[in-house]
Amino acid sequence: MKPFQSVIQLPQGIIEPAHNHYVRRLSAMKSQFLDVNEVERRLKKEDLNLYEVYENTNPEKAGELQFGTSIVHPGKIGNEFFMTKGHFHSILETSEAYYCLNGRGIMMMENPEGDWQAAELTPGVLLYVPPRWAHRSINTGDQDLITYFVYPADAGHDYGTIEEKGFRKLVIEREGRVEIVDNPKWK
Amino acid sequence: MKPFQSVIQLPQGIIEPAHNHYVRRLSAMKSQFLDVNEVERRLKKEDLNLYEVYENTNPEKAGELQFGTSIVHPGKIGNEFFMTKGHFHSILETSEAYYCLNGRGIMMMENPEGDWQAAELTPGVLLYVPPRWAHRSINTGDQDLITYFVYPADAGHDYGTIEEKGFRKLVIEREGRVEIVDNPKWK
Repeated sequence: MKPFQSVIQLPQGIIEPAHNHYVRRLSAMKSQFLDVNEVERRLKKEDLNLYEVYENTNPEKAGELQFGTSIVHPGKIGNEFFMTKGHFHSILETSEAYYCLNGRGIMMMENPEGDWQAAELTPGVLLYVPPRWAHRSINTGDQDLITYFVYPADAGHDYGTIEEKGFRKLVIEREGRVEIVDNPKWK
Repeated sequence: MKPFQSVIQLPQGIIEPAHNHYVRRLSAMKSQFLDVNEVERRLKKEDLNLYEVYENTNPEKAGELQFGTSIVHPGKIGNEFFMTKGHFHSILETSEAYYCLNGRGIMMMENPEGDWQAAELTPGVLLYVPPRWAHRSINTGDQDLITYFVYPADAGHDYGTIEEKGFRKLVIEREGRVEIVDNPKWK
């Protein structure tokens, strides 16, 4: 395999060239937001683009890396901010390194041992999500929240656990302020 | 292990807080430059700071990541640009992802199979150095060349092979231009 080069174009966060680009829309995240009626109302108008990922994918082997950019657009469903689907890694003992390039947000994390942690993301922030921590990025600002991520190539994604259980904590706006609150639907 | 946060301070490339910071000086790179007489002359005046690394170090286990910034200062020894020591990973089948934050330079790479490749580094460039490729960053500009790097935590560094053999190619300035030339000392 030969070395290869791309460029992260800012402020959009596009990787050019990228091996892969996908858009995650509201219809694929229905069960993640608290206000299900508001989800249905919004879906009748438009299947919103919540976030996009550009990634360079490599062989899914230990020793290789996957990397790319995550672009969470600004907005809310009810009082809950746009966010990524959130996941554990299929190989739970793998980590992820994030570097924030643009915007303002929160990385919400939790592990199977019952701990949770929220880290603020602003341009320049480096965040290490250690093995065992599920993670979701949440855009609390009014610009795109863009992060550059790198993780072990064999890590895989377990979206199902979060889809079923949700995260313990939600990030909402109340009276113009960002607040972290318990998720009443958390199992 | 808990998630942890730092900030990359630009344009200096300092990570605050960082687990580790080291400075690589000319005396530790003597055998790497072609013009040994010029190295000795420069050392009589000053043991130059060629480059610095800020890093956040994690357990040396598969699934974890090491990451940090590399800051190669501008300058030359004779007509050869300041550069990093250059290394293979001890576990040869591990890769590294680079993201250029500042400056201008070249990542010189080669593998045991006899291939070599040079990649230009400018702000925004993402470079994947696949498993098996030794790599060295070389500052061909007049500002600090700053890259953010991430690699598998168990990769390790094999500096010895390059110290003994050198890289196949050197990057020099000739008549005001950057040129890639054969390394006459390469074994």
